[in-house]
Amino acid sequence: MQYLNCDKELLLKEYETLKKEYKNFQDKKLSLDMSRGKPSAEQLKLSDGMLHVLEPEDCLVSGDLRNYGILDGIPQAKALFGELMGAESDEILICGNSSLNIMYDTMVRAMLFGTKEGSTPWCKLDKVRFICPVPGYDRHFRICEKLGIEMINVDMTPTGPDMDAVEELVKNDDSIKGIWCVPKYSNPDGITCSDETVRRFASLSPKAEDFRIFWDNAYCIHHLYDEGDSLLNLLEECKKTGKEDMAYIFTSTSKVTYPGSGVSLMISSKANIKRAKEHMSTQTIGHDKINQMRHVKFFKDVDGITSQMKKHADIMRPKFEAVIETLEKNFAENKIVTWTKPRGGYFISVNLLDNTAKRTVELCAEAGVKLTEAGATFPYGIDPRDRNIRIAPSYPTIEELKDAIEVFCVCARLACVETLIK
Amino acid sequence: MQYLNCDKELLLKEYETLKKEYKNFQDKKLSLDMSRGKPSAEQLKLSDGMLHVLEPEDCLVSGDLRNYGILDGIPQAKALFGELMGAESDEILICGNSSLNIMYDTMVRAMLFGTKEGSTPWCKLDKVRFICPVPGYDRHFRICEKLGIEMINVDMTPTGPDMDAVEELVKNDDSIKGIWCVPKYSNPDGITCSDETVRRFASLSPKAEDFRIFWDNAYCIHHLYDEGDSLLNLLEECKKTGKEDMAYIFTSTSKVTYPGSGVSLMISSKANIKRAKEHMSTQTIGHDKINQMRHVKFFKDVDGITSQMKKHADIMRPKFEAVIETLEKNFAENKIVTWTKPRGGYFISVNLLDNTAKRTVELCAEAGVKLTEAGATFPYGIDPRDRNIRIAPSYPTIEELKDAIEVFCVCARLACVETLIK
Repeated sequence: MQYLNCDKELLLKEYETLKKEYKNFQDKKLSLDMSRGKPSAEQLKLSDGMLHVLEPEDCLVSGDLRNYGILDGIPQAKALFGELMGAESDEILICGNSSLNIMYDTMVRAMLFGTKEGSTPWCKLDKVRFICPVPGYDRHFRICEKLGIEMINVDMTPTGPDMDAVEELVKNDDSIKGIWCVPKYSNPDGITCSDETVRRFASLSPKAEDFRIFWDNAYCIHHLYDEGDSLLNLLEECKKTGKEDMAYIFTSTSKVTYPGSGVSLMISSKANIKRAKEHMSTQTIGHDKINQMRHVKFFKDVDGITSQMKKHADIMRPKFEAVIETLEKNFAENKIVTWTKPRGGYFISVNLLDNTAKRTVELCAEAGVKLTEAGATFPYGIDPRDRNIRIAPSYPTIEELKDAIEVFCVCARLACVETLIK
Repeated sequence: MQYLNCDKELLLKEYETLKKEYKNFQDKKLSLDMSRGKPSAEQLKLSDGMLHVLEPEDCLVSGDLRNYGILDGIPQAKALFGELMGAESDEILICGNSSLNIMYDTMVRAMLFGTKEGSTPWCKLDKVRFICPVPGYDRHFRICEKLGIEMINVDMTPTGPDMDAVEELVKNDDSIKGIWCVPKYSNPDGITCSDETVRRFASLSPKAEDFRIFWDNAYCIHHLYDEGDSLLNLLEECKKTGKEDMAYIFTSTSKVTYPGSGVSLMISSKANIKRAKEHMSTQTIGHDKINQMRHVKFFKDVDGITSQMKKHADIMRPKFEAVIETLEKNFAENKIVTWTKPRGGYFISVNLLDNTAKRTVELCAEAGVKLTEAGATFPYGIDPRDRNIRIAPSYPTIEELKDAIEVFCVCARLACVETLIK
């Protein structure tokens, strides 16, 4: 049935039906989690070969990897990931287990030391602002919030962030120092920036000359289908416009091998990488080179990475399809809900009827299904329309997921009808 | 011969002899390195068992260690290292591969957020100063220098930093926010703080209520002899004086297992650890838990760590003894040089005749022996008397080391005689 503009009596009837359905789910005492983009146990298994892959003699390259030394990553890892991402060895840093940590450190360096020689540290300025495409990744927003950086929402469109709005914002306001972007299979929408969007990024003319694009390419190779979305190389595009210092690119193997025990990397202009290395030399003697070598030997080459990602896709694809199918079954007719159909990444983004997201999450929780908190996909945790929910289908088994998404659909419908009959 | 107050003619003769000896070494075209505290290949081998120690099922504890989660360290690692260091599980953070990185992060948090709720971030103050016992560790000094923190030298004594000077400095000046200290087998002197010194640290009454002791206990278990120096637990002593928030304690397994692929840890008051965790949650999802488990399984228990350290000591002890012996042979009589005789740690500290350290390092370099740069053991790289040199005997083989230290002695004598005959 169509919920909007519907006869109240019919809605009340639907309400009673939904309450019964909901009660049935509650009685099942489920305990399911669709809250975070965590790989499943089946996916983790794909990397178990890593635990034994290294022999001591594998470490006897580029000096002795078991000892101190090499701040910016072992040459073998730079070569492998440089080829994968399209970067030269002096445009890439191979770091520790967390790309979030590199993003945080990069932001902190801008706060304390400025983005380049002679530029004002952001912590010395009265106001620093960042553009945040929404919905987006809560951990990006938390970094800004923690550092007192004011966030400005800009909408996501099917081709990436609304570049009209971005261009307009940056050109007149030098307190706007940067923008977050997950350019491929975005979190949570699963949107990939179009070629035009990437070129417009590379052509930005910000009033702040220390403006930076924080390009979190977390899902660069995380396709669900053989033919993945393609994304232009931001650094290459920025070179064409002569603005390569504007691009900070990040990624990691957190969802390629083991989350928490992978390697992360940063790609940027030679000048930015040189500066980052200088700062890093105060901070650490070097990252875990043995774990870098472990990855290199496990994958051997770019084909090894590609083949690993195909195995991940085979596990992930049915889960995404199960969610989409159930959403279609529940909402195709009543049209109160829209959702994305990503071709990669870790999330499906669902927009409910306005002012029902929080209630839906609450209802789900009370039926044993954990969702990402409503509002989490917006700066300060505030979704102005209280309608966006991020579904993370990766972690549960397919059976658990099917239950969880059925519960979600009933809760979303219930929250909607509750609102409409008020 | 006695160099000081010596007849000039005799000195000139000695000068000629030394020049010949020096020339002989140059002809050998040596390439030896006594510059950094790096373990030798033989020591690295002691940990090769780590590479294969973990099976996938070892990761299925406290959730699945292969996945995201656990910010502050796996319980198994907290238990092991907590027992070793004398800390409860809510007084300890197990982090990544570098304790230098935790120290840097702790300092940066104080800069950006202050040391506790409501305290002024140090970056908002006109002047922040730190006490630096000298000679000390160059990387501590670099953190201060990078962050614009002014450093005040305080002398080391045989019982630790000159506490009269420290007490005097902190009591009247609230711009003095902290002190660095390597409390056991200090870098470079190899001095261990006496019980009285530790108690005086714990009883400090700084004018700055956000004053912090950065206690880099890097060599806590790095004894050369069965009976190691003993050090009071600073956190326990601070609890007795009610000042436990003053203590930040750091260490790592960098010189226990593999440098660069070890685990690091921070110990402090429950309140400080809670605050550090809150900040860390913005920075990362967690550290490498698999590597933490790798260490736990490799060592099994504290006895496992102790037995590993005995093997390190067996390799290190003859090297320290060879250095000391050669120093005695060269300098016992002429009395222009003094040195420490550490019972643990990684360094021997040598004080030459004033104004000859730089020249000695230069002469060594020209004879193929690399030493830590003269001045490196002082803030800003400035040794006011240009006399201190840090000898790092660990990395070369014993044969190489014997050559290297002979070269060093000839160079030190040559630099001294050059100065005296001027």
